[in-house]
Parts: sequence; structure tokens; C-alpha cells
Amino acid sequence: MSDGGAAGRMLLTGIAELVTNDPAPGRDGGPLGIVRDAAVLVEDGLVTWVGPATHATERLAPRHEREDRREAEEHRTLWDADVEVVDVGARAIIPGFVDSHTHLVFGGDRAEEFAARMAGRRYEAGGIRSTVAATRAATDDELRARLAGFVAELHSQGTTTFEVKSGYGLSVADEERLVGLAREVTEEVTFLGAHVVPAEYADRPDEYVDLVVGEMLAACAPHSRWVDVFCERGAFTPEQSRRVLRAGAAAGLGVRVHGNQLGEGGGVGLAVELGAASVDHCTYLSDADVAALAASDTVATLLPGVEFSTRQPYPDARRLIDAGVTVALASDCNPGSSFTSSMPFCIAVAVRDMGMTPAEAVWASTAGGAVALRRTDVGAVRPGARADLLLLDAPSHVHLAYRPGVPLVARVWKDGAAIA
Amino acid sequence: MSDGGAAGRMLLTGIAELVTNDPAPGRDGGPLGIVRDAAVLVEDGLVTWVGPATHATERLAPRHEREDRREAEEHRTLWDADVEVVDVGARAIIPGFVDSHTHLVFGGDRAEEFAARMAGRRYEAGGIRSTVAATRAATDDELRARLAGFVAELHSQGTTTFEVKSGYGLSVADEERLVGLAREVTEEVTFLGAHVVPAEYADRPDEYVDLVVGEMLAACAPHSRWVDVFCERGAFTPEQSRRVLRAGAAAGLGVRVHGNQLGEGGGVGLAVELGAASVDHCTYLSDADVAALAASDTVATLLPGVEFSTRQPYPDARRLIDAGVTVALASDCNPGSSFTSSMPFCIAVAVRDMGMTPAEAVWASTAGGAVALRRTDVGAVRPGARADLLLLDAPSHVHLAYRPGVPLVARVWKDGAAIA
Ligand SMILES: [Zn+2]
Ligand SMILES: [Zn+2]
Repeated sequence: MSDGGAAGRMLLTGIAELVTNDPAPGRDGGPLGIVRDAAVLVEDGLVTWVGPATHATERLAPRHEREDRREAEEHRTLWDADVEVVDVGARAIIPGFVDSHTHLVFGGDRAEEFAARMAGRRYEAGGIRSTVAATRAATDDELRARLAGFVAELHSQGTTTFEVKSGYGLSVADEERLVGLAREVTEEVTFLGAHVVPAEYADRPDEYVDLVVGEMLAACAPHSRWVDVFCERGAFTPEQSRRVLRAGAAAGLGVRVHGNQLGEGGGVGLAVELGAASVDHCTYLSDADVAALAASDTVATLLPGVEFSTRQPYPDARRLIDAGVTVALASDCNPGSSFTSSMPFCIAVAVRDMGMTPAEAVWASTAGGAVALRRTDVGAVRPGARADLLLLDAPSHVHLAYRPGVPLVARVWKDGAAIA
Repeated sequence: MSDGGAAGRMLLTGIAELVTNDPAPGRDGGPLGIVRDAAVLVEDGLVTWVGPATHATERLAPRHEREDRREAEEHRTLWDADVEVVDVGARAIIPGFVDSHTHLVFGGDRAEEFAARMAGRRYEAGGIRSTVAATRAATDDELRARLAGFVAELHSQGTTTFEVKSGYGLSVADEERLVGLAREVTEEVTFLGAHVVPAEYADRPDEYVDLVVGEMLAACAPHSRWVDVFCERGAFTPEQSRRVLRAGAAAGLGVRVHGNQLGEGGGVGLAVELGAASVDHCTYLSDADVAALAASDTVATLLPGVEFSTRQPYPDARRLIDAGVTVALASDCNPGSSFTSSMPFCIAVAVRDMGMTPAEAVWASTAGGAVALRRTDVGAVRPGARADLLLLDAPSHVHLAYRPGVPLVARVWKDGAAIA
């Protein structure tokens, strides 16, 4: 009963700036829907009231009496527990981050490959395939322990909802193992059997696609919510990608696409054609791609960690936003091209190098991620939403970009319970 | 007696990778002097032994007997306390960061100015002068509390030695107040009365320089180790800067220079001429500047947070290192142009955008900072050095660049005592 999770009631007050992502008359910050000197009431893991702190006590009193009456008639838990009031000391609260794109079930790391790349040296190792080998060689418990470490890392950095993809197994048994392990830590599991063609199918990629859409999909779909494909030169063609995504959709999975990371491949077109929830990377886009995205419900998810860690040019978020495309930011946390799990870092880079304002980047990391996962219960602080909240050691969301690299996460609640 | 500070003895062992910055035969990583599977013995706040973990027990036994004998004759504290063995679990230890350039005594912040700049809007506020106004208006205790917060922030991010400049007072009384407050938290205090010309001297800058080299220097020198000047168009000319630095040197202070941030001003030439310990920024350099630095003992201190937060082009660390210049990295933490206190962030950006390898960036943030402050007791892990150590939540120093934004600081010791 010490917080707003489970059957508790908690009033967060003294909030200098509350980012709700729920614009309304009288609120600032456009889509951020900012309330200043705010309070939030959390009950049974949900947000039940949001408003000016000065109204909270009035609001609380009648509700309290109402609860008392109801409790007196039913069970007395809530009545006895009353409400815990937490004064956050004139700091900012934003929705917990929604990281809609990670690859967190894997073995090994590729620090030497990274160091070689940064030294301008070629590194003759297998890239993704070296991670596939390390992942296949790892036991379930080894992968589970590693994943638990990453989940703790995400929580400590303010991420309260995250997606996890498979894609380092690339056999029926290993992909099933990875989606199963992912499912232990999140509902947002993505089957990415079509990550790359594994070495043993190198000379017969279409046979690998047959396997992905057949036995592998059948084994993985029950553990997954999404299907994804790496539609890029060197991975899967648009035609192969279409087969994978259609089969996944037929099996009841939502569609996501890795596309347009290294060039103007057909990823965006395919994503829009199939009504994908999100197409991720979007680094190289034609005008037609931008127009197609703007006319669609598909989110463009940008992954600043990738360009940062590979010294590639950044995607142009400004161009997308100005065209009316919905933009999300995600970490793409993986051991090869982006080994960051830090949404604050992604925000800072998106502001520095992708033309986003701090407000746009914060929206894209919270509400934008929620849209990319087709979630309405997270990514905003409004009555009925999950109480997934991030208290910053700062008076404003701007500080996430203004103070790059500084750990500003003071406290994190998920479903009303403190997790960091 | 629970750590290696004060009169304690502590053996850190299970170190997968120890960055000593003390190269020797049999060690890896060039200037990093890496020992793998290492151990470090800390006694009375100093490192007293470094080597392979397998040698530590042999080493410890005879020493232990020796200590016992000595203790038996003198006082019994060490003997009773014995040695605390800390297994760090196959992670990396590097020297604590040495941040040789910060401006941490100030009032207010400039988040709105930052947000406006990132939105491409002009912001009609006073820049440094607005911080001067807020600083003058703050009480000692307000500034002291703010500074204490920053010190905690530095420690939590692995910084164990840091410099602090004045420069937001710009009157005799206020500058004296700022160096006095800085002196409460560090020995590395820099008098920067010549930061900008304050508004009240706008039309008579040479009179302000008279004040700086006269009454202000006399008031501040007793609290300071260094004198610094902002030698740049819009701040102080090379001639004015030379007056300030010569007067500071005559008062017994070491010389530092802010130079070549916005153009090829005379900052580098002046720094080399006067034998400055460091010239900081070095964003715009002529070939003659680079050659002069390479032939001097002056360190080029690069400040990646500034270019990151102002969207300016980065300095070219590669060019400097290839020319033989000693390069340091520092945060320049200040509310205007670089409000980061994170050395790991500076390392990641230096690797991404300034042509440094991870090893060079880690050296520049530790040993490089120590050279820039003319310190031989910090910045390296070798017998006789202070036991200022940073345990990473990672197996290698490479992860500081490979995992940008991720808080990898697991534990920090200063003078052998755990501070984070
Ligand atoms: Zn990905
Ligand atoms: Zn500075």
C-alpha cells in the first residue's frame, strides 16, 4: 500500500511541469499538453485524475468521502489505506518512455567490431551472424539473465514499455526460444525470423523464406504480437519481405518493417501498402516515400543510436514532421549497430542532429512510441491510462536535450508501482 | 575500515580489464597500459600495487606479514583491520575521470534559450549576462546547494577530480565569492574574471580589464590555482587577454586559456607564448596553431558538449593527435553552451564526431585531463597515485563509446573511499 500500484492510491503533487501528451484548453506545449504546478492521482495502477495541484485537495476530499462510503459497503482496504501523498519537489513528470524497437535477446557482444569501425579499420567478422552464433550457443538461463539485466537498465532510464524482437536465432527452435524468452518480459514481442539469411541458407535465400513463413512462423506466432522483416539490400528483397509480412498478418500478427536504412529500398512503400504500424529507420527517403507515409497511418520510427554508432548520416525528422508524418523515436538496442538502451540519449541526438525540437523528441519517445505499437493505454498521462510515469531530476522536459548524457531519471513508476 | 580510504586496506580483484594509463612491458592498449584479469591494492587512499590477480595473493601474503610486524611495533589498527577483498565480477576499472574545465558556480538556467535555439528561433536574452544576473542575485547558500548537487552528479558519473571556474560574478565581491565557493569543493579553482565584459563596463572594456588585473585578481588569487581568459571576438582581444594572464601568472597562478572556439583568434598562440597548461575549445585552428601546440607543453582541451549543444562543427581531434598534440576532453559544464556534466557522453561524442578511437577518448578524459591540470597524482592507476577509480558495468573501456548514454558507472572510489 506504499504506492499507487495494485490496490493503492497515490497523489503525486508539487509537479513543476507535467507532460500529459493530452492537449486540452488551458494546457501549454501543443501536443505535449503541459500542466504546470500539477498533481496526478493514481489508483489501482491507473491514472484517475490530472490537474492543477491547487485543485487536487478539493478533488480528493469529495472522492475520499465517496470512496469511504463505497468501501464501507464493500471491502475496507482502500478506506484503511487512504492516499499516499508524494511531493516531487518542483520537478517535471513525463510519461514513461515507450521504446518500440529493441533486439534484446542475444548472446555475446561486438565491442571489438565497434572499436575497429571507430578506428577506421575493416573488421573481418560476421556482423549479425556472429551474434547469431553466440545466441545459439547460449543457454536459456544465460539469455534470460542477460535480458533481465537489460530490462533493469531500461527501467532505470525511464522506459516503462518496450518491444523486443527475435532475429538472432534464425532456426525454428532458436527463434521459438527467443520469442518465448522475450514474452517473459514484455507483451510487445516481434517475430523477426527474417532478420538476415543465416549462413546455412546463404545460397538459397528463398528456401529460408519458405521456412520463415512456414514452420518458423507457426512456432513463433503464438508467442508474438508482431511480425517484422529487414527489407534492405543484403537482407530481404521487397518481394521476399511481402511474403513474410503477409504470412505474419494471416497468422494474426501486426506488421512492422525495417526499411530504408541504407538506401531507398522498397521498405516504406511495402509498409504503407500493408498498413504496417511502423516502418523503422527511414534514413533514406524519396519524396514519394514521405508523401506515402504522410497519407498513411504508418509511423516513421527513427533510431538515432544507429546513425550515431555507425557514423552514418542521420534521418531528417524535420522533413517528416513538416510533411505531417507521425514520428517515433526508439533505441534499436542491439549489439551491432546501436548498443544504447537510453531514450534520453536518443532524444538528445534527435534534437542535435535530426532537426527535432525538445518537445517533438519527447513526444516521439513517449506518445509516438505508443502509436507505433498501437497502444492507447501508455504514452500519455490521462485518466484511464496506465500510471507509467517518469520523474525527472529537472524542472522541465527540455532538460532531456539540454543536459545530454546526464542521468536525469529520479524515479519511475510502472502501473503505479515504483520500479526505479 | 570498510574500504581503502583513510587508514584502510582494500584489494580490488576480478578486474577483467584494468586501464592504468601506465604503459609497461606486457601491457596492452598502448598508452592505456591495460592489465587483464587484474587486481589493485589500495592502502591509506593510495594505490600501492597493480598486477595480475593471480599474483595478488602472493603479493599480499608477504606484505601482510610485513605489515603485521610493523603494526605490532607501532599501532595495531591496520593489523586488526586486515585487508578487505572486493571482487568486481569480471568488469573493467579505469582511472576516475579528470574534468579539467567546468563553470559550476552559477544561478538560474537557460533552458528556454536552449529550446529556442534548437527550434531555430532567435532568443532575445542576455546569454552569459543573464546567468551573471541570476548568479549575483543568488545567496551563498543557494549557490552552495546548487554546487553540491553538481558535485554529486559528477561523482555519480565517475568524475573524481574537477576544475571549477568563476566568471559569472564579474565584480570584485562576486568573483571573490565564486572562487571561495568553488574552493570549498575542489583545489582546482580558476579565476575567470575575464569571462565577458559585464554590462556596466560595456562601453569601456579596458577599464574592466584594469579592474580584473587589479583589485579583482588581488581578491581572488588567494582562493585560486589558475587564471583563465575568454580570448575570442566578442569577449577579450589577445592584447587584453595577455594582460590578464600575465597579471595572473605574476600573482602565482597557472595559466589556462579559452580560445579558438568561434574562429582562428589568437588564443592558441597566446597560450603557447605564455606556457599555458591548457588551451580549451580549439575548434578552429590554423596549421600554424597545430604546429605550435605540437611543439609546446600546452594541452589542447576539447569540449564536445559545446559543439553538441550549439550545433557547431566539432573540433578535429584526429588532426591534433596525428600532429603530436596532447589532447584532453572536458565537459565545460555551464548553463549556456554545454549543460552536460557527463564525461562518458563527451567520450561517446568525441569518438562519433571528432575522429578519436575509444582508447584515445578514455585516455583524454583521465590522463589527458590530469596533464591539463598539471597533476601527476591522478589520471592513472599506478603505485603512489591517489586511489581514484571507476568501476564500469561493462567488461571494457570501449563500452563507454559503444553504449552511448547508458549509465555504466557501477562504483566510484576517491582516495580509496567509495563515493558512488
Ligand atoms: Zn532493428
Ligand atoms: Zn568554458
